[in-house]
Amino acid sequence: MANQETIVALATATGSGAIAIIRVSGTDAIAIVNRVFRGKDLSQQSTHTVHFGTIRDGDEVLDEVLVSLFVGPNSYTGENVVELSTHNSRYIIERIIQLLVSGGARAAQPGEFTLRAFLNGKMDLSQAEAVADLIASNSAASHQVAMQQMRGGFSNLLKQLREQLIHFASLIELELDFSEEDVEFANREQLKSLVLEINTVVRRLITSFEQGNVLKNGVPVVIAGKPNVGKSTLLNSLLNEERAIVSDIAGTTRDTIEDEINIHGVSFRFIDTAGIRDTMDIIEAKGVERTREKMRQARLIIYLADPQQDDVDEIDSQIAEVAALGVPYVVVVNKTDLLTQTHREALANIKPLFISAKNNVGVEELKDELLRKVNLHNLDSDDVLVTNIRHVAALRKTSESLGKVLDGIDNPVTSDFLAMDIRQALHHLGEITGSVSTDDLLDNIFSKFCIGK
Amino acid sequence: MANQETIVALATATGSGAIAIIRVSGTDAIAIVNRVFRGKDLSQQSTHTVHFGTIRDGDEVLDEVLVSLFVGPNSYTGENVVELSTHNSRYIIERIIQLLVSGGARAAQPGEFTLRAFLNGKMDLSQAEAVADLIASNSAASHQVAMQQMRGGFSNLLKQLREQLIHFASLIELELDFSEEDVEFANREQLKSLVLEINTVVRRLITSFEQGNVLKNGVPVVIAGKPNVGKSTLLNSLLNEERAIVSDIAGTTRDTIEDEINIHGVSFRFIDTAGIRDTMDIIEAKGVERTREKMRQARLIIYLADPQQDDVDEIDSQIAEVAALGVPYVVVVNKTDLLTQTHREALANIKPLFISAKNNVGVEELKDELLRKVNLHNLDSDDVLVTNIRHVAALRKTSESLGKVLDGIDNPVTSDFLAMDIRQALHHLGEITGSVSTDDLLDNIFSKFCIGK
Repeated sequence: MANQETIVALATATGSGAIAIIRVSGTDAIAIVNRVFRGKDLSQQSTHTVHFGTIRDGDEVLDEVLVSLFVGPNSYTGENVVELSTHNSRYIIERIIQLLVSGGARAAQPGEFTLRAFLNGKMDLSQAEAVADLIASNSAASHQVAMQQMRGGFSNLLKQLREQLIHFASLIELELDFSEEDVEFANREQLKSLVLEINTVVRRLITSFEQGNVLKNGVPVVIAGKPNVGKSTLLNSLLNEERAIVSDIAGTTRDTIEDEINIHGVSFRFIDTAGIRDTMDIIEAKGVERTREKMRQARLIIYLADPQQDDVDEIDSQIAEVAALGVPYVVVVNKTDLLTQTHREALANIKPLFISAKNNVGVEELKDELLRKVNLHNLDSDDVLVTNIRHVAALRKTSESLGKVLDGIDNPVTSDFLAMDIRQALHHLGEITGSVSTDDLLDNIFSKFCIGK
Repeated sequence: MANQETIVALATATGSGAIAIIRVSGTDAIAIVNRVFRGKDLSQQSTHTVHFGTIRDGDEVLDEVLVSLFVGPNSYTGENVVELSTHNSRYIIERIIQLLVSGGARAAQPGEFTLRAFLNGKMDLSQAEAVADLIASNSAASHQVAMQQMRGGFSNLLKQLREQLIHFASLIELELDFSEEDVEFANREQLKSLVLEINTVVRRLITSFEQGNVLKNGVPVVIAGKPNVGKSTLLNSLLNEERAIVSDIAGTTRDTIEDEINIHGVSFRFIDTAGIRDTMDIIEAKGVERTREKMRQARLIIYLADPQQDDVDEIDSQIAEVAALGVPYVVVVNKTDLLTQTHREALANIKPLFISAKNNVGVEELKDELLRKVNLHNLDSDDVLVTNIRHVAALRKTSESLGKVLDGIDNPVTSDFLAMDIRQALHHLGEITGSVSTDDLLDNIFSKFCIGK
């Protein structure tokens, strides 16, 4: 499977920074770098060693660099890999990449290093996809899900399932060779109980997708409520706190993400319904289907009320409207500092959370309530969650094929039909880990990676 | 000089990229990383080796990383240095830095790694400053000047000068011990010829600043000419070509730099006089002093004319205005495709460059002419150029003190006055390489570095 071409790319981000890493991979990686490196003879050095020297174009010194050597197969890609640590100047990076290209390397495609790691058996396809997820992870939960997938938890489970099924498949294929003798090597009862067991696991994985997807992409939340009940203030109060925490960490200034907060490691994404501003008004007006649709797609609605503005009947009727959407919701009463005892008594039946967004009272309790409401299982590092829409699609097809297998056992069909359905299930399971893959599929997956990975 | 605190920072740029490097330096760097690294025992490994493993916060796996070890003094800073190559996720980077900070490291200040390299004698001050210049370099010329300075070409020359002067200084200081005996250990004629020689070199370095500065920051150019003669078209024609070349190189998308082009490795920076648009108009109007000032500060003016629009007398008078500014200029006649023989004959005396900016005719010849006009010496890799305003200030003070020494020799003063002036010259020379430095000076220099360098 080894690819003969040597590829090169900048592996670090562009922008202001001290150093950059240029990564080279392929059979000739060490030889190509060695020809422009002045220092030690790299071809004589051991794997996993670092060497100081200069990169020269003829007599011109392009940079003083550190060169890290990884002799295949003990490398990320499984091929010879050289990483050059250069000064982070665009000019230097461009010149060195050009130099290596004229020395016989070619510019890498997005994800090509990881593609090679997959092709060389260093990781399976779901692990390779997890690498991209890991790089994109921006919360404890999305990080944990990606890390667990990259470390193979997900693949291992699928591989076990698939092996058990392959065992039965081979027995049934054997029956085909003896089809005229009407024998059954594969015990149908055992097969049925295995298929049921596998289908249970597959369906659990499919179900985990909702949670996995939420952890990966954030919990979509809409804050609903009439104008002037304090929706923006609440959002800002939630956002500001988290911003302050993030900006404490030197050297990692993060891009501003509007309307996204991180509560105990879980990301909450506030959906702009144009929106969070006057949701209740919009929902009462004509042409609200689009807004209502967004609220339905939310995983959680915060209904914010101000009893000084609306009486309890009005609030009750708004809550009924929200409840009718079928999405979990939290009833929150704002401006608690201005509430009278009468207000509180009138609201007693509703049992809302009392907060003052402006004074930051009750906001912590609201956060705890949000976490409780989205009802995420406590993440255990052994939990296997599906986060990838490609995987869940393959799992659904697997489950469908398994259903056909069960049908075929209960309403007996000939071994060749049974074998075909089992083979179909194996195919779909194999798509996930890449045991079964096509060039189109690989292109599609790796083209979404960044260059240099 | 060794600093006991261990520092940590992200050393690569933030943004989209495959990997990130977290750099740790200090006596405890290896021990601090070792406590959170699962893989080999880092304390038992040799310098300049790379190790694969995981970074763990308790039982939680934060990332799979490659750890490069550099045991002091064989490292960039001269201290123990560990570089962690992680997946480039903000979340992972933040978590790992936090983990190392709670393990006893502290977040590094801008330039602190290079400051330590200076304090530990790994490089002198002008070399340290060249590191920042190198990272900022964006053309062949600025790169070469910074590289040569970083590799010590500049410092070496200054050190030689300074050593010779120290020799004489010590002889004169010796005279002070024998001041009652009226002896002269330091031959005044030899001293004079040395000081003259040094001053020649220092003055040459001061003079080189203009060229060095131009190479580092680009040649400032104004395109002058009446409206509609094609100034913007010319600029775009120059810019577009270069942009195309730059965008050929995969993975190194550069930020758009408005109005900067690179001609055979030299950067030309077009100054917006609000400006390049209608420079000749502005210069004819009232309140033109500011525009005229910008044109005077330019290192080069391109005067662009369209003889279909203005007759030769008009053009002659405009050229006279430009010439009066005392800045080198190139006369260019645009829209050459529309010119009649009569036009050409009328312009013969002026000997302009004929171009068609729109059709890209003559643009290459113009570029060559620009290079010739700025009259940069062919850069030899041995050329020593001063590019730093701090250095040129110190050199000017050196030259001033040397002048006083010469005065003191010609109009004999007592040895102690002479010694004082020499000491002053030595002080200013020492400021450049950091043989003489103050905390304020170091703060000022290194605070301009990026974090992680």
